[in-house]
Amino acid sequence: MMIRFYNGKTLLFDGGAHLSGDEVWTDGGRIVYVGPTREDKPLFEREIDLGGDLLLPGFKNAHTHTAMVFLRSLADDMPLNAWLSEQVWPNEAKLDAEAVYDLTRLGILEYLSSGVTASFDMYVKNDAYAQANIDSGFRTVICSGLNNFDADPENIEREYLKFNALHPLISYRLGIHAEYTTSLERMEYAVSLAEKYEEPSFTHLCETRAEVEGCLERYGLTPPQLLDRLGFFRYGGGGFHCCHMSEEDVALFAEKKLWAITNPASNLKLASGVAPVEKMRRAGVPLAIGTDGAGSNNALDMFREMYLVSALQKAATSDASACPAESVLEMACVGGAKAMGLPDCAGIAPGMRADLVVLDLQRPNMQPENNVVKNIVYAGSKENVRLTMVEGRILYEEGEFFVGESAERIYDKANAFMKKIRG
Amino acid sequence: MMIRFYNGKTLLFDGGAHLSGDEVWTDGGRIVYVGPTREDKPLFEREIDLGGDLLLPGFKNAHTHTAMVFLRSLADDMPLNAWLSEQVWPNEAKLDAEAVYDLTRLGILEYLSSGVTASFDMYVKNDAYAQANIDSGFRTVICSGLNNFDADPENIEREYLKFNALHPLISYRLGIHAEYTTSLERMEYAVSLAEKYEEPSFTHLCETRAEVEGCLERYGLTPPQLLDRLGFFRYGGGGFHCCHMSEEDVALFAEKKLWAITNPASNLKLASGVAPVEKMRRAGVPLAIGTDGAGSNNALDMFREMYLVSALQKAATSDASACPAESVLEMACVGGAKAMGLPDCAGIAPGMRADLVVLDLQRPNMQPENNVVKNIVYAGSKENVRLTMVEGRILYEEGEFFVGESAERIYDKANAFMKKIRG
Repeated sequence: MMIRFYNGKTLLFDGGAHLSGDEVWTDGGRIVYVGPTREDKPLFEREIDLGGDLLLPGFKNAHTHTAMVFLRSLADDMPLNAWLSEQVWPNEAKLDAEAVYDLTRLGILEYLSSGVTASFDMYVKNDAYAQANIDSGFRTVICSGLNNFDADPENIEREYLKFNALHPLISYRLGIHAEYTTSLERMEYAVSLAEKYEEPSFTHLCETRAEVEGCLERYGLTPPQLLDRLGFFRYGGGGFHCCHMSEEDVALFAEKKLWAITNPASNLKLASGVAPVEKMRRAGVPLAIGTDGAGSNNALDMFREMYLVSALQKAATSDASACPAESVLEMACVGGAKAMGLPDCAGIAPGMRADLVVLDLQRPNMQPENNVVKNIVYAGSKENVRLTMVEGRILYEEGEFFVGESAERIYDKANAFMKKIRG
Repeated sequence: MMIRFYNGKTLLFDGGAHLSGDEVWTDGGRIVYVGPTREDKPLFEREIDLGGDLLLPGFKNAHTHTAMVFLRSLADDMPLNAWLSEQVWPNEAKLDAEAVYDLTRLGILEYLSSGVTASFDMYVKNDAYAQANIDSGFRTVICSGLNNFDADPENIEREYLKFNALHPLISYRLGIHAEYTTSLERMEYAVSLAEKYEEPSFTHLCETRAEVEGCLERYGLTPPQLLDRLGFFRYGGGGFHCCHMSEEDVALFAEKKLWAITNPASNLKLASGVAPVEKMRRAGVPLAIGTDGAGSNNALDMFREMYLVSALQKAATSDASACPAESVLEMACVGGAKAMGLPDCAGIAPGMRADLVVLDLQRPNMQPENNVVKNIVYAGSKENVRLTMVEGRILYEEGEFFVGESAERIYDKANAFMKKIRG
């Protein structure tokens, strides 16, 4: 099924963000043509008049816990310990496979409404999670979150083999939850798998100061240094959060080209700190952006994240030129794809996967059109998302979802689950 | 013309935010009934089925420079001095009355799309500014911004008399731009006017550390202390920004019930600092929220501001219970109205002005409905604004504007002005 996008602007990342007047054709799950209007057009299933709007590679949510949407607004405005012990943990214990399926469906709707075309997720009940993505037509990369609470650590090898063979929309990366939740023995097991399959490894890393101090006490090393010594990063990978990185940690990430995946909204709301994104950017650390889960964020909104990445760096460094908009948009569209192991979702070019978004520029927050890229990063919002396409299929357009199930029914199921667990 | 809102939720502020199932009737510019469904219904011009959605008092943008939308994304990612001297000042010098009219029209569209029903504005060319509000059907309070660059300081008295008599949608408060831009003589003149008319006074206040240090050097007093000594606050009023308030300044504001109007996005992006909102809240300082101008923000989006008020306070105080959602929503809906001298826009009750917003709760970011108020503050976005009504007239609904001029034409005029001044 071929689709044509024409009469608008196309965002290309070719050494910086740049707008072209190219039209774009997709065929099945791929982009097959990017260029000027041609006389020899094929027969299209649909021709979408952009009317001056912007076609861009979808945002990649490079760190999230999708099914955590059920914790949204459940227990904010409480001290962190009470939140975790009274709300998060007891309620998470009630999650079964059906709930994870239904809640993942809900989270995917929110991604689509925010122009997100792929997620890098670490949570529980991965079979149900994968099925919800497949049934919705959404792309996800599952990250194993090995830790001391797993009854069967070797399950991650079985999952690695299973999910990477399951479906074109699903893939699986190796990783641990975090140093502070994982024994040395289990970290070494994760390293052995990464070596066996020559795979990158990911983990929550340097999220809080307490985490770093604990690791220094336990091992005399920061988490990045410890993991590097263990061989965790031999085939690359990276860390989620990266708020409290030492100079040496930043240098290590730059040298080994490890991904620092920043989650500014969650870090802000949980008072975890502000990641040194500008410092890492200047050092050459590859960067991507994630929302983290809705339990802490509370939105799954890449516009909010992009704004915060830049605004928080400007504030933290007292330098208005920190993290310019072009670099932030590239982190969201391109960096995330590469971090997750989806290089063919990283831009608009023939052969790339058709994971595309149309942003409505005919809205007051995008006017005047002084600079489209800056408008998106500093003033963009979900109201600008006109269309979201994953693997060549339109899953969201003009406020409506096309995910094989009505939004109303997905909301009803989420609310029914909440009613059940709240008694 | 009577309008009925029914079959939804209504947000009441009666000692805290609370949801009721009441329906609401408006007649002309006023709310005339709030209560259960009645048998003896009048004939309505229109009956709006909320379908479970939420009716609330509109957000008040309690500090802004509306026509500054033309500076959006014009020169971000530049050091502050270069931004001011190369872009803001030379471009502002090119503003004429026609441009202010057209740009104000554009800013009003953005307010409406964000659920804002009134603005507290300080800028230039107030005749053109007021006319754009009147022609759009939008409510605004103009604040005089007396400073040393005004050729004719006594103009503010003429404006005070003129604009307070001009139109039901327009009013005018007294004020100065800021201590650092206004001579002692002119500050004393502003005080004399406040005393003559028994009016509150407003000003940019404690926005940057340099401003406070400069005032201490010049007068040996902080800006709030100086202005208080001069009698500026004899009939109340308050300050915009309030980032760098001493303990004594906070105590003064609490004692005199002066409004602290916070602008978190602008303060963050310009690295001005984080206002001690939680400290002021606990001390009993009345609080309201503004976007500041699009030149620094860059959006006019009260959802972003509400989220930031709370998240930045949680981060700054390391206390997840700081600035709970209910208090922030009250600042936006109620506080702003009272700060601006619009007490009859401060809530939903018979006799109040019909400045109302409908938020669509059937969107993924509002689900599950664990807590509607927290969902709005922590996850809300412009995509949730279904309808915005000012003075009983629907100015925005389902993405369309009804302001007596098409959005396209307003965008075209803004872009034509940019083309003209950029040459």
